[in-house]
Amino acid sequence: MENKQEIIFEPIGIIHTPYINEAPYQPVANDTKEFIVELNRKYVDGLKNLEEFKFIYLIFYLDKVNRKVEMNIKPPWADGKEVGLFSSRSPNRPNPIGLSIVKIKKIVGNKIYTSGVDLFNGTPLLDIKPYIKDLDSKSDANYGWINNSEDEEHLALHIKGIPHSH
Amino acid sequence: MENKQEIIFEPIGIIHTPYINEAPYQPVANDTKEFIVELNRKYVDGLKNLEEFKFIYLIFYLDKVNRKVEMNIKPPWADGKEVGLFSSRSPNRPNPIGLSIVKIKKIVGNKIYTSGVDLFNGTPLLDIKPYIKDLDSKSDANYGWINNSEDEEHLALHIKGIPHSH
Repeated sequence: MENKQEIIFEPIGIIHTPYINEAPYQPVANDTKEFIVELNRKYVDGLKNLEEFKFIYLIFYLDKVNRKVEMNIKPPWADGKEVGLFSSRSPNRPNPIGLSIVKIKKIVGNKIYTSGVDLFNGTPLLDIKPYIKDLDSKSDANYGWINNSEDEEHLALHIKGIPHSH
Repeated sequence: MENKQEIIFEPIGIIHTPYINEAPYQPVANDTKEFIVELNRKYVDGLKNLEEFKFIYLIFYLDKVNRKVEMNIKPPWADGKEVGLFSSRSPNRPNPIGLSIVKIKKIVGNKIYTSGVDLFNGTPLLDIKPYIKDLDSKSDANYGWINNSEDEEHLALHIKGIPHSH
């Protein structure tokens, strides 16, 4: 079973971040800069009621990744540990689809002002979904192979492979 | 800003479910039937360490949806309330990308045996990501416009627009 079907998507908007030519070097949650999800105007009516949710999923196209895809990767911070690609959040995936959860600050027209997200400016948006408490917040989730002694923001940087100062 | 870029993905596997010609009519979490995520063999090494996670995200292509996309929808169970498409988990989206969280039961070769997921048999898989406690489990999430008096499984069926007996 090796399905060769092609699936074609189109951006429905664009994600504006302060990160133009380099990845963020600071924990994004502390970032006071603006992060704006700009939806194509023809879809603006689809935002009705979205502001009633605290969190949303952003699904986007990782258009700036190095496309060399390896099935095993060694996260530079993991003491040489080699893990499977699908056990990681590395952007170098067969389908470079990114998934982030952000907090909604406000919605004005076709623009959603959100909490920080460590994406390059101009990242194409594919979908927005509401993050719904009981469906999406799994209190009995775990950390898998990841050392959970790290604090959350720091951990997030490691998991996503973003260089930063310790 | 109306980006017309085409983004091309390929299935990396297929999701096997008991639901062939009709949507599931029972809460999936009680289903004792088999749900198997079958990854294309060339990607099998990418599954290393995945079994250490309790939960994973499945990202898939909703290939069987009615593609008529409306920006406002009336979920049949919501007393005539009209909500924005992006405030819903309706499958009829500009890019029909689905997102589900499942529990891993076991992994054998290129097959991941999972908890129930309300998808049609043969749904094309686009990506697998680990669900990582601190990154993904937002304990302060809310229900948005959704009445949270429903129990979780029942709520899930409603949100996803799956017909079922009350």
